[in-house]
Amino acid sequence: MKNKIQVGIVGYGNLGRGVELALKQNPDFVLKGIFTRRDPSLIETDSKVIHISKVLDYKDQIDVMILCGGSANDLPKQCPMLAAHFNTVDSYDNHSNIPEYFKTVDRVAKNSHKVSLISVGWDPGLFSINRLLAQSILPNGKSYTFWGKGVSQGHSDAIRKIKGVKYAIQYTIPSEEAIEKVRAGNNPRLKTRDKHTRLCYVVPYDFNDIGRIEKEIKTMPNYFLNYHTTVHFITEEEFIKEHSKMPHGGFVIHTGKTNDNHNQKIEFNLSLENNPEFTSSVLVAFARGAYRISLEGKKGAFSVFDIPFAYLSPKSGGELRKELL
Amino acid sequence: MKNKIQVGIVGYGNLGRGVELALKQNPDFVLKGIFTRRDPSLIETDSKVIHISKVLDYKDQIDVMILCGGSANDLPKQCPMLAAHFNTVDSYDNHSNIPEYFKTVDRVAKNSHKVSLISVGWDPGLFSINRLLAQSILPNGKSYTFWGKGVSQGHSDAIRKIKGVKYAIQYTIPSEEAIEKVRAGNNPRLKTRDKHTRLCYVVPYDFNDIGRIEKEIKTMPNYFLNYHTTVHFITEEEFIKEHSKMPHGGFVIHTGKTNDNHNQKIEFNLSLENNPEFTSSVLVAFARGAYRISLEGKKGAFSVFDIPFAYLSPKSGGELRKELL
Repeated sequence: MKNKIQVGIVGYGNLGRGVELALKQNPDFVLKGIFTRRDPSLIETDSKVIHISKVLDYKDQIDVMILCGGSANDLPKQCPMLAAHFNTVDSYDNHSNIPEYFKTVDRVAKNSHKVSLISVGWDPGLFSINRLLAQSILPNGKSYTFWGKGVSQGHSDAIRKIKGVKYAIQYTIPSEEAIEKVRAGNNPRLKTRDKHTRLCYVVPYDFNDIGRIEKEIKTMPNYFLNYHTTVHFITEEEFIKEHSKMPHGGFVIHTGKTNDNHNQKIEFNLSLENNPEFTSSVLVAFARGAYRISLEGKKGAFSVFDIPFAYLSPKSGGELRKELL
Repeated sequence: MKNKIQVGIVGYGNLGRGVELALKQNPDFVLKGIFTRRDPSLIETDSKVIHISKVLDYKDQIDVMILCGGSANDLPKQCPMLAAHFNTVDSYDNHSNIPEYFKTVDRVAKNSHKVSLISVGWDPGLFSINRLLAQSILPNGKSYTFWGKGVSQGHSDAIRKIKGVKYAIQYTIPSEEAIEKVRAGNNPRLKTRDKHTRLCYVVPYDFNDIGRIEKEIKTMPNYFLNYHTTVHFITEEEFIKEHSKMPHGGFVIHTGKTNDNHNQKIEFNLSLENNPEFTSSVLVAFARGAYRISLEGKKGAFSVFDIPFAYLSPKSGGELRKELL
């Protein structure tokens, strides 16, 4: 029997809980422990919880560490620290800082002879793979990425800061009109605001204030001004019942020509009822990939672009060719 | 400056012409020659055409041979013969024979220290990759493949054999109803005939025969019986004007649960105005991949599952991470 892949989870927020859940669907993994900065006794789970200060005690027991911290504050510190001792996989998603982050982690992991697979998830991640695939196949073409329908935390927070708002949530909605133009192969020029509309649900403290609140939302620069924005005022009861899920998704659409007359379209899309759980599932599949390339003697930082897809599956090459090719 | 990838094309039908066209969009390739069994002087093209009997004269000049023969008769003979001397890429698409084909080619290519990348195209190929990706991420789920709208040569040929038929074409159409059920995450049980309808355009020699012809089509076992089949009779003029393109496409839809309440959907779809030209473009991108893994010292048979996506692009790792991740 093949040995199971021993993994640790670092951080136990939405993403860490999602990884714990995903591992239960993947019997070729064993969860050795969840590492946290908090007091382990306060964390409710059936898994083993260990204080992060003891992580080096597990140096020889863990094949891959799955890092579930945030991109703003956690990963830039945690990943280099852990890559010095473990193979890692993370979902670093600050697109513009990826080259810098890659460089830092690469240096550490090359020294430690470990694999550090960065920016795994759906964007960056699956969407990136599809952009790369489509552009490699149809170089005479153009890729468009649409996000949503999904919750934007930044925009929800911005509404919550308005005086008189008790609860608020903002969904980014891809524009059907823009999607149709892209699918038709028209290669339109589209700014982010042409591709998306903004849908807000707000619980006011006082329904007498809704005129002012709506105006403040719609005129907020950068966030809502120049966007097609719709605001619905609802009760606290309805808010809790209808808006406590974390849906997301989106589209990568690429159209290109193989000759002057022939348009070809490649489309990838996701519709997710729970965004963090899906990202966690992607992390787990790619943890397999990180482990497999580490067994080949690879070292340094890598991205989703560097992993052959066969390494994402627990099945053998022969099984994959027979069942899925 | 990086050296260009020297390639040859073997076979000059629709696929070979498509590869010739695709190479013009990919300046990191040089086409050294088109190899054919026919008399080279009879082939109309600006590229160099060489009789296949002289192929070994080019042993040291070609990095990858792109095999553009058919799966039924050409590739099973040509691929092992050429893999003994060249890196190859092909679009072998007889799903049930893939394991056997892989084994034969693997033995030859391991001996010759060459890479032979088989079954590249969109199905097998891009669809296979998406089935593998989706099942690895959402193991508690189910994948569905729909084909069309596209021409089925086999079904078109079957109609043409009916007495009184001058021209005929059959389009396989994915059932919108079935697609909606799958997208909704209902995990329906669907046979091929539930997923597709059949649309036929027929030019009869004599319009008095259309009743009998339609009946013969709709009652043909395996091909049309038990399918929802629509037959339109048209004139030769309309046939030539409207039905000389080679469109195709399809969908891979996977739905799965990350916990009991959360459905997640991954979808990949293609809409192609010219099927062979698109397959050719996929072959060219993966020819890059075959060449790259050969430079790493790999040898034997491989499939699309074995190629990291970074190897499909002419761009460097740093460029890809900056622009596409």
